[in-house]
Amino acid sequence: MKRVTLLTDFGTADGYVAAMKGAIVEIAPAVLIDDVSHAIPAGDILAGAFALRRYWSRYPAGTVHLAVVDPGVGGSRRALVAQVDGRFLVGPDNGLFTFVLQAAERSEIRELVVEAAASRTFHGRDVFAPGAARLAAGHSFAELGSQVADPVLITLPPPIATEASVLGEVVHIDHFGNLISNIPRGLLKREHGARIAERELRIVATYAQAEPGELVVLINSDDVVEIALRDGNAARALGVERGAPVELL
Amino acid sequence: MKRVTLLTDFGTADGYVAAMKGAIVEIAPAVLIDDVSHAIPAGDILAGAFALRRYWSRYPAGTVHLAVVDPGVGGSRRALVAQVDGRFLVGPDNGLFTFVLQAAERSEIRELVVEAAASRTFHGRDVFAPGAARLAAGHSFAELGSQVADPVLITLPPPIATEASVLGEVVHIDHFGNLISNIPRGLLKREHGARIAERELRIVATYAQAEPGELVVLINSDDVVEIALRDGNAARALGVERGAPVELL
Amino acid sequence: MKRVTLLTDFGTADGYVAAMKGAIVEIAPAVLIDDVSHAIPAGDILAGAFALRRYWSRYPAGTVHLAVVDPGVGGSRRALVAQVDGRFLVGPDNGLFTFVLQAAERSEIRELVVEAAASRTFHGRDVFAPGAARLAAGHSFAELGSQVADPVLITLPPPIATEASVLGEVVHIDHFGNLISNIPRGLLKREHGARIAERELRIVATYAQAEPGELVVLINSDDVVEIALRDGNAARALGVERGAPVELL
Repeated sequence: MKRVTLLTDFGTADGYVAAMKGAIVEIAPAVLIDDVSHAIPAGDILAGAFALRRYWSRYPAGTVHLAVVDPGVGGSRRALVAQVDGRFLVGPDNGLFTFVLQAAERSEIRELVVEAAASRTFHGRDVFAPGAARLAAGHSFAELGSQVADPVLITLPPPIATEASVLGEVVHIDHFGNLISNIPRGLLKREHGARIAERELRIVATYAQAEPGELVVLINSDDVVEIALRDGNAARALGVERGAPVELL
Repeated sequence: MKRVTLLTDFGTADGYVAAMKGAIVEIAPAVLIDDVSHAIPAGDILAGAFALRRYWSRYPAGTVHLAVVDPGVGGSRRALVAQVDGRFLVGPDNGLFTFVLQAAERSEIRELVVEAAASRTFHGRDVFAPGAARLAAGHSFAELGSQVADPVLITLPPPIATEASVLGEVVHIDHFGNLISNIPRGLLKREHGARIAERELRIVATYAQAEPGELVVLINSDDVVEIALRDGNAARALGVERGAPVELL
Repeated sequence: MKRVTLLTDFGTADGYVAAMKGAIVEIAPAVLIDDVSHAIPAGDILAGAFALRRYWSRYPAGTVHLAVVDPGVGGSRRALVAQVDGRFLVGPDNGLFTFVLQAAERSEIRELVVEAAASRTFHGRDVFAPGAARLAAGHSFAELGSQVADPVLITLPPPIATEASVLGEVVHIDHFGNLISNIPRGLLKREHGARIAERELRIVATYAQAEPGELVVLINSDDVVEIALRDGNAARALGVERGAPVELL
């Protein structure tokens, strides 16, 4: 039972996603298609990359992860397929796969051939969906294209740790308004508190340990430092956006 | 062919839902996953409970309904699995299953064991998804945990019926802006009209019987009294919210 | 492996879509259900028709496309099933299938019988879903109802072509804010430019050929003239809506 997951920034209302699904099913009729999201903000490669990081390794080996956030479609950016710890990735070469490639123990990347008949504005349907379907249908990975050694990678600002403090920033805001930082679990000490937007917050282990309405800092399910508002939306309450500084004291 | 349905308030853009799907597929590779919704308002247990009421029994016996609206994650609330008229429910013990448990002819509830390795902030992925997957993979229901006799239930305000009138309230507003009341079909008499927000409305049998732009009262597909605006959004037109009084005259 | 695709304007949060899925699975337990969209604007038949045009023929023969945008539910509009170039359509007779019927080489349409027990407000669950499921379960198309010769069709305004110019209009605005016109590929000459909202635009072959922030005109993946804003939302930037004139000069 082959399974393809699907992440895009297309929304669903125009039928673009369904055109991709049809293109997959045409080649691989028995494939199961799991929607991840079609609500990635338009053109937001970083948001897509963060989402992908959360699920790619949760699926078993053999899964094909198709991900299309592709503002550069029709330009010179390459189309990629990758084999990462037994799963496959298919999508544009624009940094979308950064965190997967950095986390994987073994990865091999190939450039997917773009056929002449492909639409120049909709590689999701005409290039990536068929590529994913071929993998799901059992075609050999090596046949899909020639090897790539230099995929585009996103560089996130690293947190700056000194003896007195750790200075990071908000790199993502999730659906609940939780502020996800670039500070890994290891840099948070028990005696720390956190400061953001001139507010000082205490550390808790779970959302439920916060008082109702309290802003707190915790280690989230991705093992990074996160700021959350119990029963509310921290981003809205603090008025902060991606890039806001987060300091551990 | 085992099938798991999935309802959350997670949105899709962060990949949290996909992480849950991956966790399911890891345990039950051939399972079919049907998305119900990931657009339940954040933390709105009642909205999740109303949705669940609409579909749980439409699916055939053997279906596993996974539902996670879980503002109390990481606190003392229990994790539940239930067997209800041949279907399974998996989710937090916070009232989400109220209407299913009240409607079911036979139900049995067990407390799902939370393993020590589970994230304290994401039971959807680490507790509920594996629980649902084990049921889908054919594990015995009885093995999943010890019996629970006192699940948390939501109490809805009952309508007040006198000889002269029936006084209820809006308990849910749907996607179309239809106002769904707590008044069951049996309390609406043919000679009745309805009053809401100082407007008097006539009873119709179908949306199409209303004049364009007319506010009407009807029995909806869930067999309760509903107020609708032909070709429009009744909630917006009337400016009412959940809790607004509805009177039958 | 039978597959049903599903397009509605129901949103997902109320569980209406899931009730339809359950009704399908009850009749056809092993069917695969691919969501197309539940975000069609409420009652917007034209938007549904445009979406359907994009995917119906991408799926292989045998696929059942279930589409419910049905403001006239409970009135006199007929319930339809159609066989179009080997795929099936199921939905209301209100124009939703216009572009499919116009594009298909062979089509046959039948009126789906509405059983007396069907809810008068939710044919999606009680009429269309069972109809789709019966087709997916292998029931004969001819058994589903009597033939229909005069389905409701939407009439789009045709573009007006003279020697000096082509005058069309915006018929759809997609998720990215791209403005999709009623002008087919054949009417766009290489020497043309386009005018919309008093702006003159040059023709490009791909989004990537536009300068950052430039408004351009191109042939889109559906082979019609489209206006797009590189890295932005053309509809918002120009302040135009469906119906705005588009002129090729």
